[in-house]
Amino acid sequence: MSATFHVDARAGRARSGRLLTPHGTVETPVFMPVGTVASVKGVPQDLLEDLGAQIILGNTYHLYLRPGVETVRKLGGLHGFMSWPRAILTDSGGFQVFSLNELRKVAEAGVTFRSHLDGSSHVFTSESATQAQIGLGADIIMAFDECTEYPADQARTRASMELSLRWAERSKKHFEEHGREVPWGSGSSFQLPASSRPPGKHETGNRAGGGARATHLGTAALGRAGAAVPTFAEQTQSLFGIVQGGMDRALRKESAERTIEIGFSGYAIGGLSVGEPRALTREIVESTLEHLPAGKPRYLMGVGTPEEIVEYASLGVDMMDCVLPTRAARHGLLFTSEGRVSIKQARYAQDAGPLDPNCCCRVCRRYSRAYLRHLYASNEVLAQVLNTIHNLSFYLDLMARVRHSIQLGEESRFLSSVWSRSKP
Amino acid sequence: MSATFHVDARAGRARSGRLLTPHGTVETPVFMPVGTVASVKGVPQDLLEDLGAQIILGNTYHLYLRPGVETVRKLGGLHGFMSWPRAILTDSGGFQVFSLNELRKVAEAGVTFRSHLDGSSHVFTSESATQAQIGLGADIIMAFDECTEYPADQARTRASMELSLRWAERSKKHFEEHGREVPWGSGSSFQLPASSRPPGKHETGNRAGGGARATHLGTAALGRAGAAVPTFAEQTQSLFGIVQGGMDRALRKESAERTIEIGFSGYAIGGLSVGEPRALTREIVESTLEHLPAGKPRYLMGVGTPEEIVEYASLGVDMMDCVLPTRAARHGLLFTSEGRVSIKQARYAQDAGPLDPNCCCRVCRRYSRAYLRHLYASNEVLAQVLNTIHNLSFYLDLMARVRHSIQLGEESRFLSSVWSRSKP
Repeated sequence: MSATFHVDARAGRARSGRLLTPHGTVETPVFMPVGTVASVKGVPQDLLEDLGAQIILGNTYHLYLRPGVETVRKLGGLHGFMSWPRAILTDSGGFQVFSLNELRKVAEAGVTFRSHLDGSSHVFTSESATQAQIGLGADIIMAFDECTEYPADQARTRASMELSLRWAERSKKHFEEHGREVPWGSGSSFQLPASSRPPGKHETGNRAGGGARATHLGTAALGRAGAAVPTFAEQTQSLFGIVQGGMDRALRKESAERTIEIGFSGYAIGGLSVGEPRALTREIVESTLEHLPAGKPRYLMGVGTPEEIVEYASLGVDMMDCVLPTRAARHGLLFTSEGRVSIKQARYAQDAGPLDPNCCCRVCRRYSRAYLRHLYASNEVLAQVLNTIHNLSFYLDLMARVRHSIQLGEESRFLSSVWSRSKP
Repeated sequence: MSATFHVDARAGRARSGRLLTPHGTVETPVFMPVGTVASVKGVPQDLLEDLGAQIILGNTYHLYLRPGVETVRKLGGLHGFMSWPRAILTDSGGFQVFSLNELRKVAEAGVTFRSHLDGSSHVFTSESATQAQIGLGADIIMAFDECTEYPADQARTRASMELSLRWAERSKKHFEEHGREVPWGSGSSFQLPASSRPPGKHETGNRAGGGARATHLGTAALGRAGAAVPTFAEQTQSLFGIVQGGMDRALRKESAERTIEIGFSGYAIGGLSVGEPRALTREIVESTLEHLPAGKPRYLMGVGTPEEIVEYASLGVDMMDCVLPTRAARHGLLFTSEGRVSIKQARYAQDAGPLDPNCCCRVCRRYSRAYLRHLYASNEVLAQVLNTIHNLSFYLDLMARVRHSIQLGEESRFLSSVWSRSKP
């Protein structure tokens, strides 16, 4: 396994720790901003670094369709392609295949689906989805799974879970055979001596065509201030398994146990936030966590609101991702310490105050609500840029406070410190 | 007059100098990025500062319609509203009234036009357009004029020119009576002692509602690194006159002489780039410049390509503005030292090199052509952000090199150093 995980502190069921990846340390619990097609929408990478993002997420389904895995691989993997020197996680493509394709066909071998871009037909199998993720070169990649729809009866849920388990085994087998083909790993042809590798150097496309161009990207990454220092223990990716089992606690337990038996570097809880009530999500998360090993990172996929991510962290979740902060920003919905702000409202048209008086992001330090409201009302691109920066700052700062509370052993304190109700 | 102008060096007809405004020194010849509705589309203000923009342009027509002059004025004028501590110039609204309104009605009193946003009816007169610009509070504001259409016969051109001259006189009269109502000027109620005014402090909305909110904006502006140190000689705006006269050299001469007779802090050449051939533009610019006073800034409105702005600087133009770098960026057309790059082209899909190997903007330092091409092809907002940053950097760096050449007395050198032909 390449990424290693250390739990440093506990408070109740919550824990804080460090996930050491080939592209830097990730402090947990962590919220991972979503960069669907190799871009966290509207935010330049240097600003994302300034926000303190230590890991971002890319979507294999989208990247596979455009620009294509081979293009990304040749340019050094996602790190080189998008010039992001810190950690990256890619999903397996399974969730998008299910959520974006009504005409998909699921078979034992894999899933046939149509591109949402041009209607062309494609197949993802455990092997091809894993191979795509090796080419994309994220630090953490995910086993291919079927995301069970909601609602689903017990028989359907079990069949889907069994399929995901067989696919998990095949994903792991393929990864064991091909994992060292990662564009930046120790299996690649070009290697600096371990002792002389500077921070950020190794990730920048030593297969990117060589010579001046690779040097360009290398220099760019080297030149970045604030990049985390990677750990070089093992220059390979890590494969995480995904627990399924729908809304059935017994099936979740069985899925967890059998996924652990296959053996992965970390374990995700998938198949939630698919339309079920939030109380049920929480119940399944809580019961599934009991069956996951304490020494491995636990990743809850696709959640949530500020309140939810704090709550899940309190239950012992280590990693989360969600499009909510970035997508809400595009719709003018902003998270603040005083509650949610719908910046389009006329009440903010002459409001000279900062968006969030308790936030020190570059947006709150500089701009007024009136200006943000004006940008949104005028459909200016800067609205999306600034709104996204603020919302991500809010999420990342929130998780930093959660980690701090856990380190202080104060379980309850951070739970009561979160407000994101509607502004009164 | 509040802005003062010093010519420091000459090379042929070109000159370099400093325009001292209430919001900092502007080195000339200068290219002014266009921030139509209080935003240079897609670029946060701190990045614009990093690019070295010393002055930006706002459009009175657009700002008058949305968010409205009174809103901007209450929030400290444009400087406070958009949190931009450096110099700003607003146009008079005349050009947009003419270019965006086919149903406009011109009378002696002013122009009746319909909003392009909602069709509502509005009137701009010399007085109201000037008053709007006082409320917006730019450092440099423009007399209200009629932009003569192209082509136009001699009689029509003369009539239009005469109207602009009468409007110029009325604009000046209104400005003399009301200019001290500027939101940040020495006529405003709140004043720091001259000796204690820190850089950036004075511009931040001392009429912005007072108390904590004004302090918020004030602190934000104070906190910005790299803001130019304002000069406080006179805390008022400057009014520039606009020379019209169509494509008729004699009328241009007459317009220049009679505009100078009215007396302004600077003189603009308007009514060009309205569809005439480029050779004619140059001819009119060159002949008009002969009649403008050497000791005042000369502003050529609405030009141009990189080659053109260098050429006009060589003829003795001090200030220029154009939407080209920002608009072209949105269409994937990028200016580089090796020629123009249409980043959407498939040839760049796997190009790991920087956009411009001779550019050290944050885009060229960090990202590959392949990545920029991918962002554009994927319709990602980051494409517009990065493309705009690069194009503005190219324009601003180009003008910095022009100034340097003039200071070295090398007239011809900078002319030959510009390439923006299509990349071979």
